[in-house]
Amino acid sequence: MAGIAIFGMGRAGLIHFKNAISNPRIRLHYVVDMDTSKAKDIVDVYNLGEAVKVLSPDDAAVVFVDERVNSVIICTPTFAHEEIVLKALQNGRAVFCEKPISENAEGIRAAYDVASKAGKPLLCSFNRRFDPSVSSLREKVKAGGIGQVYSIRTCSRDNPVPSMEYLKISGGIFHDCAVHDIDMACWILGQYPCSVYTMAHAHDKDIAAMGDVDTVAIVMKYPSGAIVTIELSRHALYGYDQRLEVFGSEGMLISENQRPNELQHHSVTGCQSLPMKYSFPQRYAESYIAALDHFVDIIEGKCSVEVTKDETLNVSRIASACEESLKTGKAISLSFS
Amino acid sequence: MAGIAIFGMGRAGLIHFKNAISNPRIRLHYVVDMDTSKAKDIVDVYNLGEAVKVLSPDDAAVVFVDERVNSVIICTPTFAHEEIVLKALQNGRAVFCEKPISENAEGIRAAYDVASKAGKPLLCSFNRRFDPSVSSLREKVKAGGIGQVYSIRTCSRDNPVPSMEYLKISGGIFHDCAVHDIDMACWILGQYPCSVYTMAHAHDKDIAAMGDVDTVAIVMKYPSGAIVTIELSRHALYGYDQRLEVFGSEGMLISENQRPNELQHHSVTGCQSLPMKYSFPQRYAESYIAALDHFVDIIEGKCSVEVTKDETLNVSRIASACEESLKTGKAISLSFS
Amino acid sequence: MAGIAIFGMGRAGLIHFKNAISNPRIRLHYVVDMDTSKAKDIVDVYNLGEAVKVLSPDDAAVVFVDERVNSVIICTPTFAHEEIVLKALQNGRAVFCEKPISENAEGIRAAYDVASKAGKPLLCSFNRRFDPSVSSLREKVKAGGIGQVYSIRTCSRDNPVPSMEYLKISGGIFHDCAVHDIDMACWILGQYPCSVYTMAHAHDKDIAAMGDVDTVAIVMKYPSGAIVTIELSRHALYGYDQRLEVFGSEGMLISENQRPNELQHHSVTGCQSLPMKYSFPQRYAESYIAALDHFVDIIEGKCSVEVTKDETLNVSRIASACEESLKTGKAISLSFS
Amino acid sequence: MAGIAIFGMGRAGLIHFKNAISNPRIRLHYVVDMDTSKAKDIVDVYNLGEAVKVLSPDDAAVVFVDERVNSVIICTPTFAHEEIVLKALQNGRAVFCEKPISENAEGIRAAYDVASKAGKPLLCSFNRRFDPSVSSLREKVKAGGIGQVYSIRTCSRDNPVPSMEYLKISGGIFHDCAVHDIDMACWILGQYPCSVYTMAHAHDKDIAAMGDVDTVAIVMKYPSGAIVTIELSRHALYGYDQRLEVFGSEGMLISENQRPNELQHHSVTGCQSLPMKYSFPQRYAESYIAALDHFVDIIEGKCSVEVTKDETLNVSRIASACEESLKTGKAISLSFS
Repeated sequence: MAGIAIFGMGRAGLIHFKNAISNPRIRLHYVVDMDTSKAKDIVDVYNLGEAVKVLSPDDAAVVFVDERVNSVIICTPTFAHEEIVLKALQNGRAVFCEKPISENAEGIRAAYDVASKAGKPLLCSFNRRFDPSVSSLREKVKAGGIGQVYSIRTCSRDNPVPSMEYLKISGGIFHDCAVHDIDMACWILGQYPCSVYTMAHAHDKDIAAMGDVDTVAIVMKYPSGAIVTIELSRHALYGYDQRLEVFGSEGMLISENQRPNELQHHSVTGCQSLPMKYSFPQRYAESYIAALDHFVDIIEGKCSVEVTKDETLNVSRIASACEESLKTGKAISLSFS
Repeated sequence: MAGIAIFGMGRAGLIHFKNAISNPRIRLHYVVDMDTSKAKDIVDVYNLGEAVKVLSPDDAAVVFVDERVNSVIICTPTFAHEEIVLKALQNGRAVFCEKPISENAEGIRAAYDVASKAGKPLLCSFNRRFDPSVSSLREKVKAGGIGQVYSIRTCSRDNPVPSMEYLKISGGIFHDCAVHDIDMACWILGQYPCSVYTMAHAHDKDIAAMGDVDTVAIVMKYPSGAIVTIELSRHALYGYDQRLEVFGSEGMLISENQRPNELQHHSVTGCQSLPMKYSFPQRYAESYIAALDHFVDIIEGKCSVEVTKDETLNVSRIASACEESLKTGKAISLSFS
Repeated sequence: MAGIAIFGMGRAGLIHFKNAISNPRIRLHYVVDMDTSKAKDIVDVYNLGEAVKVLSPDDAAVVFVDERVNSVIICTPTFAHEEIVLKALQNGRAVFCEKPISENAEGIRAAYDVASKAGKPLLCSFNRRFDPSVSSLREKVKAGGIGQVYSIRTCSRDNPVPSMEYLKISGGIFHDCAVHDIDMACWILGQYPCSVYTMAHAHDKDIAAMGDVDTVAIVMKYPSGAIVTIELSRHALYGYDQRLEVFGSEGMLISENQRPNELQHHSVTGCQSLPMKYSFPQRYAESYIAALDHFVDIIEGKCSVEVTKDETLNVSRIASACEESLKTGKAISLSFS
Repeated sequence: MAGIAIFGMGRAGLIHFKNAISNPRIRLHYVVDMDTSKAKDIVDVYNLGEAVKVLSPDDAAVVFVDERVNSVIICTPTFAHEEIVLKALQNGRAVFCEKPISENAEGIRAAYDVASKAGKPLLCSFNRRFDPSVSSLREKVKAGGIGQVYSIRTCSRDNPVPSMEYLKISGGIFHDCAVHDIDMACWILGQYPCSVYTMAHAHDKDIAAMGDVDTVAIVMKYPSGAIVTIELSRHALYGYDQRLEVFGSEGMLISENQRPNELQHHSVTGCQSLPMKYSFPQRYAESYIAALDHFVDIIEGKCSVEVTKDETLNVSRIASACEESLKTGKAISLSFS
């Protein structure tokens, strides 16, 4: 049984909150947020006033002395991740942390080392891995369903445009967005790239002003000869466009976009279907649930952590290489021991 | 705020239970079931041991003296509906009842009369009306989106085959299944048919032995000239096949089947997609949630009951006419005042 | 090698003309039409002035003394079919005739008898049988791909509305349209129905005025227990809507509508695809080519006539029974020896 | 009226031959091929023995003194293009030539100069431009239907693998395949790229041995900020995979793959559709017809040549830059006056 505290009740935090209280294997005890009044309102709306305590970060120490709490979910702004991760691990709690665990590689490495020393699991949630269509696609590839992999194409376009406040602290499109696509590609191929190259542009003046870009194409070559193409955008107004395609010697697998339902309107001008799912809470609703289930499985000792230290560090390093390629205009070579 | 007791924890009961505890506008207080031990297990799994009391039907009187309970959800076997509906209404509770409210027309009529006298809402849940694609299809028809309606086609094929135990008490395929399609057609057209005709067959020997059929085609003509075609089956092994199509002078609307996700596997033999959703809990997951929300809206005085006494009675009468057509081999004329 | 004369250069005639001149196994020698001037223009446009002679019906006798002509294609108005069919057969020519061969059953029977006596093939072209998706659907059913057939649903909606001139001589919607659906169902099932029932309506006042209907639902029951549902309309403004579905114990096969191409436009209001194919020349382009190829195969002795005398007569008889059901309001029983 | 001679009766030649003889605006007079016996057989099968003369290349001079011939279609092996193009233009004939016009840029430039001096049209057929879904996609982009273009993604995977004989004389995957994708991108954007980068691999040993590659990813950046991603493969065994997607500030347009027809087989393992169209003669059947119609329009003075000298030369230059990028591992900068 997972006894849980959630740190951060923003967009991701609220999703985890709802999933936690609907999950019979989880008992939620604490919610920690700067805005205690807003957090209390949420807890009250769900009639959990007695079961779930709301704390401000200053009082969070309570969590780590409450023996009912054996695990924490961390979805605060990125800059606060590392400190809470470390405190939780040092106090013997299992940790589920939204990516990235830290703003820099040393922080990530240190967190895993502490987890290892404490003998406690640290799960960095790359939530697309837990999407049913992505995970079954990978299983089919691993089972040889499409033979040898020749290429992977991903398309990840955000909707709606994140707020400028968020974008400023997002860490940039490579560490905020590209990491998901890079992680999926490496996870499917079971390899890391030997070379990456990036082209990008900022169509949005505000994004340009903060030194970031909103449209990106990355190409990566892998030791097996496989080539990965990633296309990112900060804004697809027609919906949250998330596609993944793997092409091999024996066939092709595609995880296509999903619609809310299958209503069709046929008229003299054509056949109109609904727009694809609006944004990540709709598209990845099942992934969040599955990721939490995986975390409880880990806590219950049923399996080990799906996302490893090496994977997390390497994906971050690859994202940085893509960023460097953009800055230098050159392909960046990589090697992994 | 809805304070609720659920009667019956079978297939539908469990769905309502999960939706009720995840709905911030509902507080669940009681679960009533013959098998109290199984019901207790469920409540415990969700950590609701303190909040939700499990009762046997013999002790159900407790529910009606507990002032926190202002409404009940009834999903017992059909034969038990009427008694609980009446008791709940007479005790001033709002009632949400799985169809049919009673095994016969007099019982249905009586229940609505009691509701009317008590000034309490009685919602007979035709849950397909609350399916987002069905309800938006109807809105588009009502808004003139396809002009004058010429025809409606429905296809409702069950999966998996219900158990023989269930089929024996189901009331027969016309009152168990066809009522949904008949209700949708009448609700969309805003009319009742003037004539119905039925053809049917029992391919399954056990179903034949109980005097029921497993494959049905119904045609109905409406005063506007619209023609409705309904096809039913007790078993589509490829998935829960639920389609609705409305054709008019300006276009066509189709509510097509849905898949769990959009994974495609292209190989030399073609493109394989997932099977359509497996059964009603998957296909109508959103409908159950929306129906419950509608019930809470009613309790909170935000709207009136969507499914009326006349509709419920007329749909039942039409289903009986379809059954009679099958027995007599003749078209049955109907008139509604 | 087929040496051919075409009688009638209307809509179907022009399709056969184009297919004949592109088919390396066919040499077209004559085109016979009332409007010789229009026919000559067509022949000239295709630079066939020397190879193809245009005749008026009065001069058609030339065709039957020209030894190069071993076969004729008849696509005149229906009332003229029978006379030309008989003349061609009596002169030892193979005959391809648009349905129906005659306006009445005796005429059809007589034509087949003459064909039999002359030892010449008579092909009544039910062109949907030659559609690649329809014919491969049937093959899969015959090979047991969906187990025992429970039901067949067809939807055949015309576009654009035929001209009133045509409708007046069409023979009525049952003999003009329903015969195609009836033929497909019987051909797939390998049986004829034991009972049929029809509902219909005329929304179009002009069609009502000529005693015909524009919207039809037919249900038919077969000895195997299979139930067939046919829906017809004279006007689907969103395209030529032609669907066929066979449902059985092991699965379902659907021949779905086709679009001219797969251009998608995603916008904030949804995903727009092209309208389905516009009308029968677009939708059944391949069927016409395949039917002609079948005819040449017959002429070359490679196979026997796919559409038999019994099939043609029985389908016509079933269409008449559907018409009678509409007039009497009763189900019509049928038996076939 | 186009009076035509076809040079080369290989794969493309045969397609043009069939389209020419079915096109009422074209009169075909000559077919020129090394293998006169095979060419004669084809002409005879279509009963064109009298109308169409077969010539060996040695006797081709006849074509240019026959006044009926005002235009030629050239689909010989690439190395022979230039000579025939020049001879035809110098003799005052309009020229339709499969790409490339010459094996090198000087040859292409020279051919256009001769055309210009002769005042005769020279059409280098980039046949994808004439595909109905590609051309209507471009029209929608040009009309502002998706706002400002952010990115273009193409996927062009061949099927079946071309023969090693062909691959050896193909000019390499960049000049044989990538030119089509590069041309479409530039044509849609109305610009040429300022920078290109390529990754590639040869999975096939025979292709590696000839110094070519079979899997390619190209990224290109355009002055407007638009980014183009091209993915190529020599072998997709599941069908001829040809996709084009344009993403902009207001939406997205996709030209998706097409299937021969829309037969669906639903079973317990999912829904199986047909494989996409098999190869280029199936997928681009309409493009070849439309390209020929465009050529006749040019001959008849109804429009000017759609594919210009500058476009042809620049696309070739870009393909060479992509090749150079692969060799050097560096991005290649380009500028166009």
